[in-house]
Amino acid sequence: MCGGVGSRFWPFSRNDRPKQFLDFFGTGRSLLQMTVDRILPLIPAENIILVTNASYAGIIREQLPDIRPGNILLEPARRNTSPCICWAAHHIKALDPEAVIVTLPSDHLILKEENFRQILKEGMDFVKQEDRLLTIGLKPISPHTGYGYIQIGRPVEDFPGICKVKSFTEKPNLEMAKIFLESGEFYWNSGMFLWSAKAILNAFNRYDPETAGIFDAGCEFYGTPQEKDFIDRNFPDAPSISIDYAIMEKADNVYVKTADIGWSDLGSWQALYETSPKNREGNVTQGCQVMANNCKDTVFAVQGDKLVVAAGLEGYIVAENDNALLIYPIAEEQKIRQVVNDVRDRFGEKYV
Amino acid sequence: MCGGVGSRFWPFSRNDRPKQFLDFFGTGRSLLQMTVDRILPLIPAENIILVTNASYAGIIREQLPDIRPGNILLEPARRNTSPCICWAAHHIKALDPEAVIVTLPSDHLILKEENFRQILKEGMDFVKQEDRLLTIGLKPISPHTGYGYIQIGRPVEDFPGICKVKSFTEKPNLEMAKIFLESGEFYWNSGMFLWSAKAILNAFNRYDPETAGIFDAGCEFYGTPQEKDFIDRNFPDAPSISIDYAIMEKADNVYVKTADIGWSDLGSWQALYETSPKNREGNVTQGCQVMANNCKDTVFAVQGDKLVVAAGLEGYIVAENDNALLIYPIAEEQKIRQVVNDVRDRFGEKYV
Repeated sequence: MCGGVGSRFWPFSRNDRPKQFLDFFGTGRSLLQMTVDRILPLIPAENIILVTNASYAGIIREQLPDIRPGNILLEPARRNTSPCICWAAHHIKALDPEAVIVTLPSDHLILKEENFRQILKEGMDFVKQEDRLLTIGLKPISPHTGYGYIQIGRPVEDFPGICKVKSFTEKPNLEMAKIFLESGEFYWNSGMFLWSAKAILNAFNRYDPETAGIFDAGCEFYGTPQEKDFIDRNFPDAPSISIDYAIMEKADNVYVKTADIGWSDLGSWQALYETSPKNREGNVTQGCQVMANNCKDTVFAVQGDKLVVAAGLEGYIVAENDNALLIYPIAEEQKIRQVVNDVRDRFGEKYV
Repeated sequence: MCGGVGSRFWPFSRNDRPKQFLDFFGTGRSLLQMTVDRILPLIPAENIILVTNASYAGIIREQLPDIRPGNILLEPARRNTSPCICWAAHHIKALDPEAVIVTLPSDHLILKEENFRQILKEGMDFVKQEDRLLTIGLKPISPHTGYGYIQIGRPVEDFPGICKVKSFTEKPNLEMAKIFLESGEFYWNSGMFLWSAKAILNAFNRYDPETAGIFDAGCEFYGTPQEKDFIDRNFPDAPSISIDYAIMEKADNVYVKTADIGWSDLGSWQALYETSPKNREGNVTQGCQVMANNCKDTVFAVQGDKLVVAAGLEGYIVAENDNALLIYPIAEEQKIRQVVNDVRDRFGEKYV
């Protein structure tokens, strides 16, 4: 899945180049490229299907020249994860009715890649025979209030680290998050899923019949030259709804594979800050030169081969991309989404 | 005089476009253009001579298309104000031995332009007959520690507002500046001078014979096609010295015309801040769009049709030009000069 907008990272991410397409850590590979690199030892390129917004077709072809165009599914509208996953499942089932699907976001960081691939391998074994939905739960390492949590139930025999899911919870407040952490029963909801194509389509029929109905109508077209036309006409009618809300929170055959894979969803500047190498003063530099005097715990993410000279900043984001410059306290980063809306209201699309 | 470098305003000013060439106030006219505009009612374009560094020939022609190329004297090296003034005096004397010269910096702000022209008119009357050097002293309105001060002596009869100079002083500390202000005897040294060509050349012979000797050797060339060649060969030999130090502090025929002309030398971000229109929060915006949240007393001087979104900045300079971004407390702006040197040491000329 690589169709998101990522306005939380404005102006580091922009409308035409959201987070997944950025070389986030200055390593020469975008988060999307890193996601593909990470699974290639396990899943060959011809079995990697990308679902994205039609407007990103060009940048994906540019970043992933080895993925053939037929493997890139272009959504004609933004409809959250549920329609995306339903379409992809139909598409894949048309190619292989027995297919097992690993569903991954393309804008996460995973540091322990070997562990990660091992987890996927064991997870695929678990879902390939029966009608099971598996999500990956990360062992929490802090009382993070930015993630949803999964409460684990009874372990599944013969599949180490896999449990029945007792409940999904929304993002907790700090007090609750601390209780979750201490209990040992709660795991971070990673948004990564494994299931067979059949199992997830069964679940759509049962728990999200509206979405299921829209995509079931196209069964004769998936995997054919008519698929695109069917999608372009019908996809926009699908409700905009997340897979968690549409399926995972309702289904009774949901399991969780608990994992320790050095994971971050990079959903915030704070997350970027925490996962990035820092200098002695705790400053993070992305893609620019920085001469900082008396600056602490500040992220400098400035595009375009620039020099930043700064003094006296503590806990700041300094981010620039093209014609927009942001200088904002990291602690107030939750306001940035609204700022971007305000920018759009006032100036149109010029700066977003 | 328009050959200065202006590194204090880096990166707002850059090596190839120092302060005098910038549209400082976003009015559509650079400080140099404003300087010429300001004196045109008094001095016709054909009598305006510009002395600048050879590297600025292009930008001057671009900004001042009505000044003919022969009126632009191009220094082959940077040598402070004394050689500049000595050469210009020779050049002008060759065109008109009786000429009276008004010597002006090109990067100052003058708000009361009518007063200013009246002051120049009265000053020219004062210097045209006798061997007198006249400087313009500004009535101080605060105990400014960034300016030199002129102590006035006895008034000159028949020339209102003109006094003999008792002494020049270097930039005082705050305590001293307060005493100066209260005394009523001290005026800010503006760096603007009036004299006849003859008078200033006499003074050079007497007080700065080294400079005088270098330029006297070219008397046969001034105003001829050979002038450029003579200058290119000999100008670099002149000592780098200011006119204050070479002449004004030593000569015994120095007078001051006291004036109230709404003057600032714009020598600092603080000065720019003080002389610029501010919004309700005391923020100054130069050449960019700004959405500021909880920012106070901050200057946003960002080039290139950009949007700046900022929060929590108080008393800051946010300046960007081309590939350099500065975020610095105004109160520490005296460090910027050193920062620019450090930038040059570390990165060469790329960012300066």
